This record gives sequence, structure tokens and C-alpha cells, in this order.
Amino acid sequence: MKAVYLDHAATTPMRDEVIEAMMPYFKEKFGNASSVYSFGREARKALDEARQATAGIINADFNEIIFTGGGSEANNLAIKGAAWEYRHKGKHLITSSIEHHAVLHPMQQLEKEGFEVTYLPVDDQGLVSVEEFANALRGDTILVSIMHANNEIGVIQPIAQIGAICKERGILFHTDAVQTAGLLDIDVKKLNVDMLTMSAHKLYGPKGVGALYVRKGVRLVPLIQGGGHENRRRAGTENVPGIVGMAKALELAAAEREVVTPRIQKLRDRLLEGILNIPHTRLNGSRTERLPNNINVSIEFIEGESLLLNLDLKGIAASSGSACTSGSLDPSHVLLAIGLSHEVAHGSLRLTLGRDNTDADVDYVLETLPPIVERLREMSPLFSS
Amino acid sequence: MKAVYLDHAATTPMRDEVIEAMMPYFKEKFGNASSVYSFGREARKALDEARQATAGIINADFNEIIFTGGGSEANNLAIKGAAWEYRHKGKHLITSSIEHHAVLHPMQQLEKEGFEVTYLPVDDQGLVSVEEFANALRGDTILVSIMHANNEIGVIQPIAQIGAICKERGILFHTDAVQTAGLLDIDVKKLNVDMLTMSAHKLYGPKGVGALYVRKGVRLVPLIQGGGHENRRRAGTENVPGIVGMAKALELAAAEREVVTPRIQKLRDRLLEGILNIPHTRLNGSRTERLPNNINVSIEFIEGESLLLNLDLKGIAASSGSACTSGSLDPSHVLLAIGLSHEVAHGSLRLTLGRDNTDADVDYVLETLPPIVERLREMSPLFSS
Repeated sequence: MKAVYLDHAATTPMRDEVIEAMMPYFKEKFGNASSVYSFGREARKALDEARQATAGIINADFNEIIFTGGGSEANNLAIKGAAWEYRHKGKHLITSSIEHHAVLHPMQQLEKEGFEVTYLPVDDQGLVSVEEFANALRGDTILVSIMHANNEIGVIQPIAQIGAICKERGILFHTDAVQTAGLLDIDVKKLNVDMLTMSAHKLYGPKGVGALYVRKGVRLVPLIQGGGHENRRRAGTENVPGIVGMAKALELAAAEREVVTPRIQKLRDRLLEGILNIPHTRLNGSRTERLPNNINVSIEFIEGESLLLNLDLKGIAASSGSACTSGSLDPSHVLLAIGLSHEVAHGSLRLTLGRDNTDADVDYVLETLPPIVERLREMSPLFSS
Repeated sequence: MKAVYLDHAATTPMRDEVIEAMMPYFKEKFGNASSVYSFGREARKALDEARQATAGIINADFNEIIFTGGGSEANNLAIKGAAWEYRHKGKHLITSSIEHHAVLHPMQQLEKEGFEVTYLPVDDQGLVSVEEFANALRGDTILVSIMHANNEIGVIQPIAQIGAICKERGILFHTDAVQTAGLLDIDVKKLNVDMLTMSAHKLYGPKGVGALYVRKGVRLVPLIQGGGHENRRRAGTENVPGIVGMAKALELAAAEREVVTPRIQKLRDRLLEGILNIPHTRLNGSRTERLPNNINVSIEFIEGESLLLNLDLKGIAASSGSACTSGSLDPSHVLLAIGLSHEVAHGSLRLTLGRDNTDADVDYVLETLPPIVERLREMSPLFSS
């Protein structure tokens, strides 16, 4: 059976070049990078090179990169670590209502600890208003976290503008760039961010590795304390193969972006157009301020999970919301935030393309999806064509 | 040049079988284990099997295993997570003065937050006294963390006895078993522990993966919040290849332990005997209550770092203290705790054997080490033979 993977926002397969780059560090150059002997020195050298490469790609310095166990850890470290460190300066935090749970849940934890959090709404396009953001700032605001692009609807936020305001006011600004790193060009200086989260497995690197950019001078209370690794900000024997793999994946993405991104976008546009030809469908989130690989559509009168299972039977992997909350019956908080009813939110489909998708994949989905939708609607008590 | 790796307490090379077990999950079965489609189901199945295997090996249940990004994270989660969760019940914690920094530093963090911590001393053999421990218990003691075996001197603590007392008193008991898992038979019920930390890269598995056993009914405030992974106790897309590798490494260790451990112990005993034939040397830590692969000796009138570098030039990888604190000039807190002077602590050498070491390796070290020691002593102003 044909297999078409369209859930690259959830995770991506590792590239051969990445696996190859990691292999020597599994059993040959396996030493502890914090040791003094030769085995360790080879690992240390690889770690240093990976850190330099990662820093260079986002226009940061060597010491501004903290490698973590993934994007969720990086978000938790940025938000809780900064809030705890600077709590004497103020207790107010700002975020948006459509953040990933790895931002929202730490914020809720901090509320329990006495912090006050403003959750900015978004408009029906999924966008945070810079003006509303500026109005939400208080004298005791110490930290702002607004995602670069949303994981469900792919909407890209006006980060550079928000960051400029934060910078002017001397407030720390963090962005979750898990969905954009690898796909878009990231420059931490142009984006005006103090902290930025990346995840390797979203960009054809290994699972279990992420990185947090932390601008020089910003201090954090560590989440994981122990040895002096990562400049005393994240203890634990360095995952050298994983870190080498992440850097390799970032380097490949940066080198190929100009060719790959337009190709993906062209496929996405054709797929989106075809899907919107199905009656009673609508695109969720801005058409223009959007990741080049993201489609999120509501297909009325159907149930998202049934659609997913039917697509799966045809070899098409998609998502109905955030992969992290699958298993939950609650509708997506992102889709509710842009104004969808519970019912319409439940009938939404996310398709996220990747570098291996082809025109044939798009053709296949456009042949396969409409009859499935038709059949599911025929079974729906709410639908009358 | 001959290469003899004798730093298995710091990290181990991955076994071929482990790498092989992980490979399919890098790019073929790469799906997100929390997704509903087939790609994700294969990953989910592998994750479930790895969890079951890991649980079975330590006599735990499926839902009692939390996979983490490593041993340090597991220790931090156990200690801070439990202290935060149960702070309404009391503010007193007990640990030992020779714990790994991934236990000591979280304890110090909790002291800053208002907890009170008792750091139990150890005797000159490196052993915690069960009686002293019992005397340290208070009405408001909520958590005890005593390591299974020490990473520097290899001394095995009377965990089961301490655990029995905790159980009787209804106090949570955590043990850091990073040094013992894989090497010794671990049974969480016989050890009377509520929580137990393991690290994959110490037992021929991958770096960047660990596990925390948490007895059913024990709750924790998560360190990494976000998606509902690991039963809502550790957010982040599951590192399926890493977790599969960890389980495989544990399975191999369990299957081969009865043959491998005595073989390592025999090599260790011969190596230790040879080293102690060098004048002015002493074994640090108990000879009997000791990991079968650990040697830690003080070699008077020499400086540990010089010795390490000289051994390295001969292809021998060893350690002078904890790998995690290398780069630091402070003498080991463990060696000071067993009564060594700063000077003698600085002249200590740790050799930790592994499954690939041979009689030829032992011969080589016993040929190589004594002349190096002799030469270094000749240069020492303190030594007169």
C-alpha cells in the first residue's frame, strides 16, 4: 500500500546523513565529553563543533546554546528557569492562549506559585496583536513567551516586533521555535529574542535532543542540577551522538532551505487548493502569515478522529490536532481560540508536509480524501447535502 | 597503541545489539508514539515493550517506569518532584554526604526554598550507618535519598535496611542506582525503595536516556510539563530509539550478569592486588561492600591529574574522581567524607572495569602504572623513598 506521511509537525524521520554523523559516537568515540583522556577529548571536540554549528546557524555565540533533552525541556527551562531567577524583579508573565502545552503548563505551574500570567487572545486568523501585547505589559512584567509559529495552525507570529518592544522595556523575551527551526531562517538578533527553543526531531534529527538559545547575560535557575555541564545550566552527561545529530540536521536544513522550502510550499498550495474544493471546508489560521508546510482545515459534519483512521487505512498519516494531546477528547485549545465551535474544531484535519513529499503524494491525497469525507458525511445525522 | 578503557563508571560504549535494536526507529518506524496512525502505532508498540521489559527486570509494573533524558534528570525529578508534592506534610529531607551532585545540588536548591536537609556522614569505609540514619529521622521527614552504590568509591549502601525503616515510618525512599543497574541484580521490592534512578549510558545503552521507577501511588510535581507523556509526569515526544536501546541494554545485562559479573570481579581483584603492591597506596572505601568493577586507590605523593595524563599517553583511560566534576580543582567530596586529607584525595585514581576488559588489559596496566608512579614521585618534593 502507498504510504504518505503528512505529519511532519509531529515528528520527522532521521536523515541518513544525520544517522551517519552520529554513528561514530555510539561505540567508537563514546567517551564522556567531560573527561580528560583521549576518549573524552574526541567527544568533547565533537560537542564543541556541534555547539558552534548550532550557534552559527541562528546567529548566536558558542556559549549561548544549552543542549537539552528536547523542546519541552527547553521551554520549561526557559520559562520556569527565568521566572524563578528573576522573581524578585516582578511576578507578571505574558504568553498567548495558543502556545504549546510545554509553555502553557509551566505558566500554570508558576501561577500556582504566585506568579500572574496574562494569556493574550488571538484574532480569527490566529494572530497575536502587537498592540494588545503592548497594552498588557506592566511595571512588574519580567518575562514574555510567544511562539514563533503555531504547531497546529502554522500561523507565524510577529515575533520581531514583540521582541523589539520587550527589548526597549528591558523585559525577557522567549520564543518557542520548535516548528520553525529547520524550515525558516532563524536569526536570534533579527527576531529580538533573549531565549529560543528548538527540537531536533522536528527537523530530521534525533528524538530526545533539543536546544535552548539563551542570550549572554540572561541567568536561569536550572531544572536539572548536578554536574557542571552546559555551563552549569543543565546537568547530565552530554548526549554527544544526539547533539552531533541535531547540529548535522540543522546544517543540512540551512544549506538546502532555499531549494526545499519553496518546493514544499508549492506542494502545500496545490494540496490546500484541492482540499478547499471539497464543500463546507475552511482553512484555519492566516493564509499569508503561515508556515510553508502547514494545512489545517475544518471539514464540517465529520469527526476528525474517524477521518484520521480512514486516512490511515489508506496509508495517509495526518493529525487532527496536536499530537501531544491525542488520546484526549478535548477539542484543540488553538482552534477554540480562533473562534471555532467545539463541533467544527472536532472536524479539523492537520496535514504538514516535509522534504520527502512528492506531487504523487498530493495526487494520492486528493484522490483519497474527498470520497472518505463524502462517506463520513453520509453517515452523519447533521449533514444534508 | 594499545587502548585500555577503565572508566566504565563514567560511561560505556554502546553494544552492537543495542545499536541494532535502535536502528529501525530512526527512520523507518519513526512515528510519534502519541499519534493514532500506523507510523505512530509501531513506535507506541516498541515503547510499550521497552517499558514492560524495563519494569520486569527490576520487578516493577509497567506504569511504574518514567523514561527521562538521563540519570541526572531522574534524580532531580525524584527529589524535587517529591519534595514539592509532599511539602505540606513536612519539610525535612535526609541524604548522605557522598551522593552524586545530581542529588546533592537538588537538595541544596530545596534548602534555599525552605526545606531542611540532613546530610548523613559516612564512616572511613564509606558506609552510611543505619543507626545514625534512624536517629536522624524526624516527625516531619518526608523524603530520604541514599545512593545504591557510590560512583567514585563503589561502596554499596545498606539500602534494603534503610528502605525497611522508611517503609515502616511511611517516609518516601529514593535511591540513585545509576552505578548498580546493569551490574547488580535490582529488585525494587527487595530493596524497599519507592523511587529508583537508572541511566542507560552507564550500562552499554545510549546517552540521553534514563528511567525513574516510581512506586504506584507516589505522586510527583513534574519538572518538564507539557504533553501528557509518561503518565503526565514527564512531557516531551518519547525518545523511542533511545528507550528501546535502554531496554535492550538492560535485557542483555540481566541475561549475562551471572557470567559477566564474576569475570569482571576476578579481573578487578587481580588489578587491585597488583596496584596495592605499589608502596604507599591504599584502597578507598570498603573492600567487601563494593561494586565488583570498582577500584579507587590513593597513591601518595603524586597528583591525580598528572597520573591520568600519563596513563592517557599510554592509552589507558581512567578517572581521578567523578567525571562530572573534572575541570574542577576541588578534591572529591566523597574522598574527603571518608576522611582523606586534601592532599591524599588529590592523589587518587579510579579504575572501573567493564565487560570488554581482558586479562591482557590488566597485565598492561600493571606493567604501565608502577613506572609512571615512580617517575612522578621522583619529581615530587614531598616524596623520599
